[in-house]
Amino acid sequence: MSDDKLLNIGVCGVGTVGLAVIDIVNSQTAMLADRATCPVQLTHVGARREHVDHHYGDALVSRDVMDVARDPNVDVLVELIGGTTVAYDLIKLAIAEGKHVVTANKALIAEHGNELIALAETAGVQIRFEAAVAGGIPIIKVLRESLAANQITELAGIINGTGNFILTEMSTKGRAFDEVLAEAQALGYAEADPTFDIDGTDAAHKLVILSSLAFGIPLSIDAPVKQGINELTPADLEYAAALGYRVKHLGIARVSEAGVEMRVHPTLIPDNKQLASVDGVLNAVMVSGDAVGELVLVGPGAGGAATASSVCADVVDIARNMMGSGPALGVPATQLVAKPFIPAGDIASEWYVRLTAADRPGVMSDITHVLASHEISIESLVQKPPATGADEVPIILLTHLASESAMKVAMKEIMLLEEVHSEYALLRVEAFEH
Amino acid sequence: MSDDKLLNIGVCGVGTVGLAVIDIVNSQTAMLADRATCPVQLTHVGARREHVDHHYGDALVSRDVMDVARDPNVDVLVELIGGTTVAYDLIKLAIAEGKHVVTANKALIAEHGNELIALAETAGVQIRFEAAVAGGIPIIKVLRESLAANQITELAGIINGTGNFILTEMSTKGRAFDEVLAEAQALGYAEADPTFDIDGTDAAHKLVILSSLAFGIPLSIDAPVKQGINELTPADLEYAAALGYRVKHLGIARVSEAGVEMRVHPTLIPDNKQLASVDGVLNAVMVSGDAVGELVLVGPGAGGAATASSVCADVVDIARNMMGSGPALGVPATQLVAKPFIPAGDIASEWYVRLTAADRPGVMSDITHVLASHEISIESLVQKPPATGADEVPIILLTHLASESAMKVAMKEIMLLEEVHSEYALLRVEAFEH
Repeated sequence: MSDDKLLNIGVCGVGTVGLAVIDIVNSQTAMLADRATCPVQLTHVGARREHVDHHYGDALVSRDVMDVARDPNVDVLVELIGGTTVAYDLIKLAIAEGKHVVTANKALIAEHGNELIALAETAGVQIRFEAAVAGGIPIIKVLRESLAANQITELAGIINGTGNFILTEMSTKGRAFDEVLAEAQALGYAEADPTFDIDGTDAAHKLVILSSLAFGIPLSIDAPVKQGINELTPADLEYAAALGYRVKHLGIARVSEAGVEMRVHPTLIPDNKQLASVDGVLNAVMVSGDAVGELVLVGPGAGGAATASSVCADVVDIARNMMGSGPALGVPATQLVAKPFIPAGDIASEWYVRLTAADRPGVMSDITHVLASHEISIESLVQKPPATGADEVPIILLTHLASESAMKVAMKEIMLLEEVHSEYALLRVEAFEH
Repeated sequence: MSDDKLLNIGVCGVGTVGLAVIDIVNSQTAMLADRATCPVQLTHVGARREHVDHHYGDALVSRDVMDVARDPNVDVLVELIGGTTVAYDLIKLAIAEGKHVVTANKALIAEHGNELIALAETAGVQIRFEAAVAGGIPIIKVLRESLAANQITELAGIINGTGNFILTEMSTKGRAFDEVLAEAQALGYAEADPTFDIDGTDAAHKLVILSSLAFGIPLSIDAPVKQGINELTPADLEYAAALGYRVKHLGIARVSEAGVEMRVHPTLIPDNKQLASVDGVLNAVMVSGDAVGELVLVGPGAGGAATASSVCADVVDIARNMMGSGPALGVPATQLVAKPFIPAGDIASEWYVRLTAADRPGVMSDITHVLASHEISIESLVQKPPATGADEVPIILLTHLASESAMKVAMKEIMLLEEVHSEYALLRVEAFEH
């Protein structure tokens, strides 16, 4: 490290992900310093083209990305330029210069990872690539570290967001492939040349990386069997649905006595599997290990901020490894900050209420009147038919946001209504919509 | 470390989890040595009662668990005895003796974690507790490391498998709470005294740990608001379902300008959320971060092997931290082992086939005859009605397991049938059933 108490990073490539990384490093300074156990500082930016509207704080800016790899002040080189030519030379140079490397480049790791990782291990530097597979989903770390005590037998993933978006649109709306592809391009999900998303090459690169981690085999770029999604018809998706299946473009890897199978293809999976309900641009990976059983991780597979989340996690890991081990609670115990806790009464939710009341006119009006007097508004209200011979009916209602205190006072008043039974249910509703 | 090239562990507690940990350490020696970058050896077992049928290899066995903490040959003490009295004394002693600690004890970490973690940090040893929350799901590591570049704003989890089993049975089968609880006890899911599972105490302990990691606050055992599941009725679950919701017992934590809310209670969540479809004894945690967006992890929340998977991952982490950083691909590049790849033709799956054929008697018989001649058996076969005026009908069939080679040869023969149209679809089906 250039200084005992500081980690200097150089970022090469200032596209969506690069800019998001720079934004996190420059705006979350205190948080990253706590978690990395030392300050993380942007020292040098490699931007092959001039962007007059981008500011990189105090960092040096070079047009030649190799200058970042040669900069003696850079501890960690973050490669976000993509491709397998300049990026390859850049990372080789960075390793030769004794720098740690973080990259989001799946094609490069799948194709040249064996060489680059061996070089890094010989040089005693780290090379990390969490962002290379499934964007913000930490599947590399989970395989590499969390499942270290497992023999992994199988993994399967939706690891191309563009393809999953297209399939989701085709199957939920019956739209044709070409039409949805055009929309995906207009929305910026698919590249101008979407070949690698469509024919499975992108997913195959990711599967190669996952398989190496899962099975302890060298990165084997030619191993996956590939079939794209371009020949799927809405009719097939519909027939599959009628049979209880969803069609997903999966990367699948398995190991057995016979060897390793790696394949990327449209796959029918039963409706009730977690992977079946992963729609749109989301990614997901399922892993089976002999000890853990089956784990499924679901999250954003692309996007600048989500990918930058993984890139920066790699940077923090490198800092922690240099400083010893990371702190048990993420930050050192001395850096924990107490915050006030919100009392139950003040916590607002939507609410589910079940009441039992006499089946008489005016009851509903009385109940809604009480709620209104406490400014609790009703989202829906259902009066169930009475059981045969019964004089009482269940009433179910959902409210909009209200505090627990307001609900409890209102319920107390409702219980005083002559027509209402004293037994009721009051449950919180959470839609988790952000 | 007692030796530069060896990590010695002492395991205290030989219940389900302890035995599973011992089994992994003793049976996966080579794998763990590769991944930990040094051999991991069981040196000392603390078993308060004698179990004549348990063998611990060459390890020393002590009736007094404190002997394990005092053993100068032990590098890492694994605490699996549970409770907050002996376990507390044991971990304090281990830290004082300069040992790293791994524990699965959520009650202890939630109640005494602030003190124990501060002691460990002062002593320069590590304390790890991945297995304390959500069994085999690596949520501690994901919060602590993978999301290090995120401000976490919210998390919500199904973090008590017993409770989720009971709710799943109640809502899918309309069974009453007391009846399902009795079954859960008979199946060994619920403790003889299931109070902590039912009243939310167990989930609250886990939520306290997750909240500390997510928000950087001290462990605050008294913070969660708690409501159990014992008052839920099948009728409420049914009404909720009719409104498009599932009822789950969730731990929820949020942070805002006003402070932190932490609560454990039955919650209505919309059907289409990933958490809604997590059934039975599975656990799941959803986390929202400002960079990553929303991540969901689903997996086994309990069970000896799944919990041991997390315990052993902590042990491997400690070894890697002592040896420098872990290798990029989980094992050093020199330790990767090439395996044969299975050619596409040999990979067996179930298959989806869509054909178009003349709407004439005998067609189905001809097709099934070809498949049978290649020993491909049919799971289901549907002939769709012809489109108005059309002479041709779509035929959809699902096969049992067959290799791609067999399928391709059979399809070639089927294409030669006079009544069959040359355009067809052939897709793999994967049920992921283990």
